[in-house]
Amino acid sequence: MTKPILWTSTRTSGSIVHQMAAASGLDLDIRFISLRKGEHRTPEFLAVNPKGEVAAIQVPDAGVTITEIPAMALWLAEAAPESGLLPKDPLGRAKGMEWLCWCHFRMANTFTIAFQAKRFTGGDEAAAAALKATAATRAREALEFAEAQLVKQASGTVLGTAQVTAPDIFLAALLAFGGFLGVATDDLTHLKALGAKVAAVPAIAAALAREQEIG
Amino acid sequence: MTKPILWTSTRTSGSIVHQMAAASGLDLDIRFISLRKGEHRTPEFLAVNPKGEVAAIQVPDAGVTITEIPAMALWLAEAAPESGLLPKDPLGRAKGMEWLCWCHFRMANTFTIAFQAKRFTGGDEAAAAALKATAATRAREALEFAEAQLVKQASGTVLGTAQVTAPDIFLAALLAFGGFLGVATDDLTHLKALGAKVAAVPAIAAALAREQEIG
Repeated sequence: MTKPILWTSTRTSGSIVHQMAAASGLDLDIRFISLRKGEHRTPEFLAVNPKGEVAAIQVPDAGVTITEIPAMALWLAEAAPESGLLPKDPLGRAKGMEWLCWCHFRMANTFTIAFQAKRFTGGDEAAAAALKATAATRAREALEFAEAQLVKQASGTVLGTAQVTAPDIFLAALLAFGGFLGVATDDLTHLKALGAKVAAVPAIAAALAREQEIG
Repeated sequence: MTKPILWTSTRTSGSIVHQMAAASGLDLDIRFISLRKGEHRTPEFLAVNPKGEVAAIQVPDAGVTITEIPAMALWLAEAAPESGLLPKDPLGRAKGMEWLCWCHFRMANTFTIAFQAKRFTGGDEAAAAALKATAATRAREALEFAEAQLVKQASGTVLGTAQVTAPDIFLAALLAFGGFLGVATDDLTHLKALGAKVAAVPAIAAALAREQEIG
């Protein structure tokens, strides 16, 4: 059996999957590529992932590559059911997938737009600044919604429980992205506690330290 | 056992989950609400789904509501494993989830922005028109990517096979959304064939006819 390969890079959303992979405890072949050097645009990498994006999990023995963060989380959780990345029962797993997809949708709909505003305005600087401001406001609203759900701890929640889950890891990353965007987060105390808890999981702390080394 | 309830509405992305639910063959209590009448903002509905969005699948016996299209697709597929909505093996299910999440991310990142451009520009009409144009271009690019993947039929694909899957249903809806945005789609012959195949599944055709009746 050839080890599955996690293709990722530092300073991108690839870190989210790297953290989930670390928390899974699975023995993966982790390969960092540099987007700055265009290593996601080489013919070799495009053969692995035609989207030219990281993260991607390549399963060489099956000739298949999995992309999209919630799908990679599902694969990791099922390959390592004892990791607790997602609950094992169908309803719990669907609830976990809901939060992963919520994070993914918000990332697409708010955070990514804020980070890439100029791409969405065809280069127009003033329009990009306005779009970025709107997107940052929406990012704040999304984080407030997550904070309220953390406070409520409704039935079936997979967030902020004793078990650090894949949705916890994704949500902690969104909180960090909010910080990069200059969104106020100091009052979101439950989210901040969640972020600290995720970062303190030994395997995740080790993964983040490795990313720091690579830079 | 109380039947699970699918909350949805016509002329929204709720139709996607309605179609998946129909294809699942599950006996659900399907309830249409009117967004125009604000029925998604009532205290009763917000108690079911604090996001105030459709679709949502409420499982009364568990006191849990599942939202986000890919998560609802996973729940439906696991509740009706013979429906073929998603493959049964973990790798195939992850691959199906990948496409569901790709559709969901594109919906957030391109289609929704085009439909709601004014919301993203704080009401500025000219900026909204420019943003809508950029988003429509990106929608076209997304549909072209899906078309190319349909042509390729790479290993492990869950799209355009003999079995109509949840990702097929979502992708067919994105094609329709492209049409609503005025995006050229005539040359995307594989996607169009997929759309026709999805619409011809008897249970889906019946669901779409019911939506037409409701209006």
